[in-house]
Amino acid sequence: MIDLIAFDADDTLWENENYYKEAEQKLAGLLVEYHAREFIVEELLKTEIRNIAAYGYGIKSFTLSMIETAIELTGGKITAAQIQKIIGFGKEMIATDVVLLDGVWETIQALSSSHTLIIITKGDLLDQERKVARSGLGDYFKSVEVVSEKTSESYARILAKYDIAPKLFLMIGNSLKSDVLPVIAIGGAAIHIPNSTTWAHEAVSEEESRKNNYYELDHLGQLPEFLNKLSER
Amino acid sequence: MIDLIAFDADDTLWENENYYKEAEQKLAGLLVEYHAREFIVEELLKTEIRNIAAYGYGIKSFTLSMIETAIELTGGKITAAQIQKIIGFGKEMIATDVVLLDGVWETIQALSSSHTLIIITKGDLLDQERKVARSGLGDYFKSVEVVSEKTSESYARILAKYDIAPKLFLMIGNSLKSDVLPVIAIGGAAIHIPNSTTWAHEAVSEEESRKNNYYELDHLGQLPEFLNKLSER
Repeated sequence: MIDLIAFDADDTLWENENYYKEAEQKLAGLLVEYHAREFIVEELLKTEIRNIAAYGYGIKSFTLSMIETAIELTGGKITAAQIQKIIGFGKEMIATDVVLLDGVWETIQALSSSHTLIIITKGDLLDQERKVARSGLGDYFKSVEVVSEKTSESYARILAKYDIAPKLFLMIGNSLKSDVLPVIAIGGAAIHIPNSTTWAHEAVSEEESRKNNYYELDHLGQLPEFLNKLSER
Repeated sequence: MIDLIAFDADDTLWENENYYKEAEQKLAGLLVEYHAREFIVEELLKTEIRNIAAYGYGIKSFTLSMIETAIELTGGKITAAQIQKIIGFGKEMIATDVVLLDGVWETIQALSSSHTLIIITKGDLLDQERKVARSGLGDYFKSVEVVSEKTSESYARILAKYDIAPKLFLMIGNSLKSDVLPVIAIGGAAIHIPNSTTWAHEAVSEEESRKNNYYELDHLGQLPEFLNKLSER
């Protein structure tokens, strides 16, 4: 019934957004004599969104946006030493260990014997490859597809490459905008597993999500049982 | 005889290295009151090589390395306004038009009717996708493979994905280190088309290149005739 199961990576298989939140707070701490923390975080988000077209996603883009925001919000008063610190915040993120979410290891291991599994993720190619390697899960996935944006077109292109009909495809992820809605739009199935922290740029309105049909699970450990039930119907 | 022809992108299909050289000179101009131009460019190269493991290739990595070098070489005296300029150098590179090298358009168009063509490139995913789109050549290539490093392993992985035996594979590029030597090592064929500007990090010794067997052409326009001769033998 399902020939190919694809997983989002960040905040679906392992923690990610919390490292960005930590870095945001470090930046806010650095600039706290100039502005309120909340305002700094808001302005950073604006810079990030403005830079997506040029920079795309990932830690390097985020680091460059932090530097740009710091220069703007201090009216050019930020020092070189402080900018060096911001570069350090980014490098710490790159060096961080991969922490798998609950139930991920057992679930991926179990499903890999019955299904073809791949990862579909956006972000920085090198960074995502590194996280897959560090996760220890690499051998369970047939391939890792890193795309610059998760649109219906990018999903359709991947399915064409694997010669899989959309109705035989299941996508699992924490972002309605990136992992669920574009897959449903091309006739695939999708499971939403919400994460406690979702990046503001990835949030969609409740109204938009209510219009669509998709499954929702609390954590990945529930997936094998869910697939069993699905195949019994 | 050849089932799959893969092309490197930067400095094989279109100009690239010269934009990096231009940005290096802009950085050197910005820091000229502190150091000699040549020294600045040398130090930048050191920073870039030190950062490859963390950042990988591409314009964002290069921008972050320019900022780091500027902070180091000014002993932290560089101003926020100057760092903003460096960010601007990087953004200009991202926005630059794609300029095809001589003979590329006709050659790719001609070969696409007789062979399966793909692009294999390293660097930043978004940036490479953008250049392929801007080049107008996108439709002639079956796919674009962006890898984090061009090693024998990464080539072997791509050939496995396309189910192509190495001896039926031809790689064409301007870098002996990235496009020629690792392909020959797994039993594929390779054509070297030297570019007038090669990044110091990509250079290999003459001795190393003499040990290996590969073809060399002056420009891509010679490729169709070369392939004809090859198939007559």
